[in-house]
Amino acid sequence: MSSIFGKLFKVSTWGESHGKAMGAVVDGCPSGMEISEEYIQAFLDRRRPGQSLLTTQRKESDVVKILSGVFEGKTTGTPISLIIENEDHLSADYEAIKDWYRPGHADEAYDSKYGFRDYRGGGRSSARETVARVAAGSIARKFLSEKCGTRFTAWLDEGIEGEIEKARKDGDSIGAVVCLRIENPPKNLGEPVFDRTEALLAMAMMSIPATKGFEIGEGFNSAKMRGSEHNKLAVGTYGGITNGEDIFCKIAFKPTPSISLPQKAKNKNGETGEITIKGRHDPCVAVRAPVIAESMAALVLMDLWLQSISG
Amino acid sequence: MSSIFGKLFKVSTWGESHGKAMGAVVDGCPSGMEISEEYIQAFLDRRRPGQSLLTTQRKESDVVKILSGVFEGKTTGTPISLIIENEDHLSADYEAIKDWYRPGHADEAYDSKYGFRDYRGGGRSSARETVARVAAGSIARKFLSEKCGTRFTAWLDEGIEGEIEKARKDGDSIGAVVCLRIENPPKNLGEPVFDRTEALLAMAMMSIPATKGFEIGEGFNSAKMRGSEHNKLAVGTYGGITNGEDIFCKIAFKPTPSISLPQKAKNKNGETGEITIKGRHDPCVAVRAPVIAESMAALVLMDLWLQSISG
Amino acid sequence: MSSIFGKLFKVSTWGESHGKAMGAVVDGCPSGMEISEEYIQAFLDRRRPGQSLLTTQRKESDVVKILSGVFEGKTTGTPISLIIENEDHLSADYEAIKDWYRPGHADEAYDSKYGFRDYRGGGRSSARETVARVAAGSIARKFLSEKCGTRFTAWLDEGIEGEIEKARKDGDSIGAVVCLRIENPPKNLGEPVFDRTEALLAMAMMSIPATKGFEIGEGFNSAKMRGSEHNKLAVGTYGGITNGEDIFCKIAFKPTPSISLPQKAKNKNGETGEITIKGRHDPCVAVRAPVIAESMAALVLMDLWLQSISG
Amino acid sequence: MSSIFGKLFKVSTWGESHGKAMGAVVDGCPSGMEISEEYIQAFLDRRRPGQSLLTTQRKESDVVKILSGVFEGKTTGTPISLIIENEDHLSADYEAIKDWYRPGHADEAYDSKYGFRDYRGGGRSSARETVARVAAGSIARKFLSEKCGTRFTAWLDEGIEGEIEKARKDGDSIGAVVCLRIENPPKNLGEPVFDRTEALLAMAMMSIPATKGFEIGEGFNSAKMRGSEHNKLAVGTYGGITNGEDIFCKIAFKPTPSISLPQKAKNKNGETGEITIKGRHDPCVAVRAPVIAESMAALVLMDLWLQSISG
Repeated sequence: MSSIFGKLFKVSTWGESHGKAMGAVVDGCPSGMEISEEYIQAFLDRRRPGQSLLTTQRKESDVVKILSGVFEGKTTGTPISLIIENEDHLSADYEAIKDWYRPGHADEAYDSKYGFRDYRGGGRSSARETVARVAAGSIARKFLSEKCGTRFTAWLDEGIEGEIEKARKDGDSIGAVVCLRIENPPKNLGEPVFDRTEALLAMAMMSIPATKGFEIGEGFNSAKMRGSEHNKLAVGTYGGITNGEDIFCKIAFKPTPSISLPQKAKNKNGETGEITIKGRHDPCVAVRAPVIAESMAALVLMDLWLQSISG
Repeated sequence: MSSIFGKLFKVSTWGESHGKAMGAVVDGCPSGMEISEEYIQAFLDRRRPGQSLLTTQRKESDVVKILSGVFEGKTTGTPISLIIENEDHLSADYEAIKDWYRPGHADEAYDSKYGFRDYRGGGRSSARETVARVAAGSIARKFLSEKCGTRFTAWLDEGIEGEIEKARKDGDSIGAVVCLRIENPPKNLGEPVFDRTEALLAMAMMSIPATKGFEIGEGFNSAKMRGSEHNKLAVGTYGGITNGEDIFCKIAFKPTPSISLPQKAKNKNGETGEITIKGRHDPCVAVRAPVIAESMAALVLMDLWLQSISG
Repeated sequence: MSSIFGKLFKVSTWGESHGKAMGAVVDGCPSGMEISEEYIQAFLDRRRPGQSLLTTQRKESDVVKILSGVFEGKTTGTPISLIIENEDHLSADYEAIKDWYRPGHADEAYDSKYGFRDYRGGGRSSARETVARVAAGSIARKFLSEKCGTRFTAWLDEGIEGEIEKARKDGDSIGAVVCLRIENPPKNLGEPVFDRTEALLAMAMMSIPATKGFEIGEGFNSAKMRGSEHNKLAVGTYGGITNGEDIFCKIAFKPTPSISLPQKAKNKNGETGEITIKGRHDPCVAVRAPVIAESMAALVLMDLWLQSISG
Repeated sequence: MSSIFGKLFKVSTWGESHGKAMGAVVDGCPSGMEISEEYIQAFLDRRRPGQSLLTTQRKESDVVKILSGVFEGKTTGTPISLIIENEDHLSADYEAIKDWYRPGHADEAYDSKYGFRDYRGGGRSSARETVARVAAGSIARKFLSEKCGTRFTAWLDEGIEGEIEKARKDGDSIGAVVCLRIENPPKNLGEPVFDRTEALLAMAMMSIPATKGFEIGEGFNSAKMRGSEHNKLAVGTYGGITNGEDIFCKIAFKPTPSISLPQKAKNKNGETGEITIKGRHDPCVAVRAPVIAESMAALVLMDLWLQSISG
């Protein structure tokens, strides 16, 4: 299993949702940039659960510590090691269903692939892994902001608060779309063949748990347009290369698979039964996703930026 | 600029649309598989233009030759070098507009990035580059077909022949959606963090010129569904890992940017003017895309397959 | 700056010699292997200074902790995060010479490259970085030992204890040669072109600080031999591929550059002067190197082993 | 099997010694540099056999053609595809011993690893593969020469012409040492941990067939020196980073394993017998190696140069 992202700005994440800690090593960050634990913390706080009625009440203080790579307040060019200790690692809620594969989850696939299942709640396929992405991404976005004035902003697509509240009351969950705008991206990022900006953004977004679709610019709508019409649009990439114009993306999230309603499930022995998943879960996984999407976009553009100045 | 795809099954493509030849080096193919120029040729023939009224009439016989890596009809495990000579490299049609950036094309971005523009027609950002992907992909699909019984089938989404014909008559072009079904994919491919099967498929599809969107499974539709409903669907990947069930994707293509209608354009000096693009162009770039999508999917699964048996 | 080693068994090391902690993330370790902090600790103890008169008296207890990737005593296939806290991070000894480039050290090159110098003692170019390599390497050697019965043994080449002791008394240092034997290496590792076993071993050994030469088999002696003679030797690799026979290497280490004798030095402003380096330093850097060489060899063979089973 | 070298300046070589052609794809070369087939040819001519009594009389005209990546005499930043057709692919000499593993060759290891043996003479493990490295390396050295004034010069270490001639007369072969000087290397290349300049040079040199040892600077001699002495030497790298001073290396080559004398050999069935290798072979493989060593060094420094400007 590999958990390394990027070619020159490489992020290696680690940690299980119910283990001792989560973390990331950021390898390849240029030297001389000011960075602090407080700066990174602000993004983790945006991702943290328990902040609104729309998210799970699980308590995670998610305090980040910098263990290396920063000296006298500045990056030194050496690997930046980030650690977030897990506080809430009681897994009593999972004990009851430890022999069952939760519907819509990776439990069965994981077990089949690795011959092993971390029944404490998803292991590396848990959404908790994204805490390390947000920490690492915050370093990339600071760099791009200072160097190029780039800004990443993502938000839930619709006025679906009502729908989310309804789903929660029903013990159910609901999907959603996240929109992402990249303002003032660096020019000349990306390459015309495999490493197109849109290809790398697509990969980054579709690596976020529970994603099912990605659009850039007009997306699927462009399939219905005529060339004379589409050629007139302002578009942020041509032939995979950024031109400095804003980039706009949409990402589709499926509904949270963990729901309170009783569900049919299988276990390791192939038996079927009905299970009920306890504990508190986000009724809409996309609610906490905007800062994750922004972070992944920052990692993509940072890596492309380093590549662009190398040749 | 990099034109290498894959981690273990690595494909290095080369060649400009109006140069001497196009090619690919396939690095990492296991030894002992029967392969012939005829087998590969069949897929190139599917991609070739000039086969129906819906595609351009440009003549490309696209004959592939194997230069290395195959001995006595079988792969030897060494790099397989594939070459397709370009026949139709007169660029008279491009001469008239060589100082102009074609609207909707990569011309300006390419020039800005590389300080250079191959005015003969797109260089590496030309759709012609995909001939090398199809050649390389055919080797991957043969391997997966024999080893795992995997089948890749892609097609144009709708009954849009009428729309395409109408666009052509108007000197215009139109976008379209390509559907892709992967039957009998190998089980346990992909990883739960960055290298999710859907992330790598998204990247592969969004690296095909003119793509604007990607969906897997229910795609954007899943954003409107409830968990109790979505959990019941048969889905080919969980947590990024394949489970052996069929995988279904959709890819959105924008309309061909080259249209016969006169268009406003810019040139290198920032002047604006009206240009007319001569020559024959596909009124719908997606018409030839199904075999390209199949090939890219085969490259992704082949690479994941090699990774999956390594650990 | 990159600190990642390997293609499939990837080790990402981090930490500065005088920072909070050192560490490694091991990405790509197969699941199901028993591993404990005690097992890893034994190798760190072999590397630790202060154990004999021949090494520095600096106190480093070097206690390793496993933060992720191990569940109920076994690897889970997820990234294994290892951390070793630094205890002895007083840098008073360095304060006096913080403006001077120590002769024979990386100080000036580092400053020139990164526009920055960690005057607390070498930063990432310090030999202390190797503690993370030994921790990561111990996981690889356990795997290879259990799977293939491979054994790594390295030792100081000669009876040079007397020479080392003499150098210490003189306030000077001395170089040495480390020998490495790999018994029972897995068969069929390595590839005939760039990724030859001997090339990767050479790279691994020459990435250890202070190394100046590498030999495999007869090494430079083979340059004086005739083919009829050399062809009869038992050799562990042919064409870069292992055949299961033992592999024998030698690695040359230069003398420790930190010596007590006064030396001419330069500073950042280009001025010259005489400096004296305080503190306790190994009079022979190679004394602690055997376990490092073994660890790097284990990382190379582990990575090649994963590659060999993938194709 | 992988035949790709480099991280940013990537060279993918292909071709078997007795197949249709040899070649390389150079991926990542910056745009705008003048390059011609004549320039590359000059280096291939230096490597070509049949030029002196000290090399084999096998006739290879080794004419290189550029198939892509160069437009109007200049690199375009796109992949440069180089091809050298094989002329001399009669393998009658090999027919007689096709069932036997030649002593000192990769035949047996190759067969064991790939379940296959290209009895026509070594396949990818043949020294002929290096023709593609020299072609690719010539592009790197032109770039470094023009950009930084870097010069690569390698030569046979000793006055061993007499020894070579004697070995030839005896139907035997002999090893040798190749020296390499890199004048005016770019400053600030390489990194302090794994990607040290000396580590990458070691890997590059030890990936040349028949190499057994590598030294940089004082090499094994430094193991006998004292720090007070070694610290005074002018050295081209500190902590793995170049400082602009010349770099000096030595590479040990074993004797050519193909000799005319009758030798004991094994075959696939484990039987032993005596074989005589016909055909003309270099009595000293190192005679043609200097231009190969220069080329590999150029590839290493070019790749590090691109990396150094990226961060």
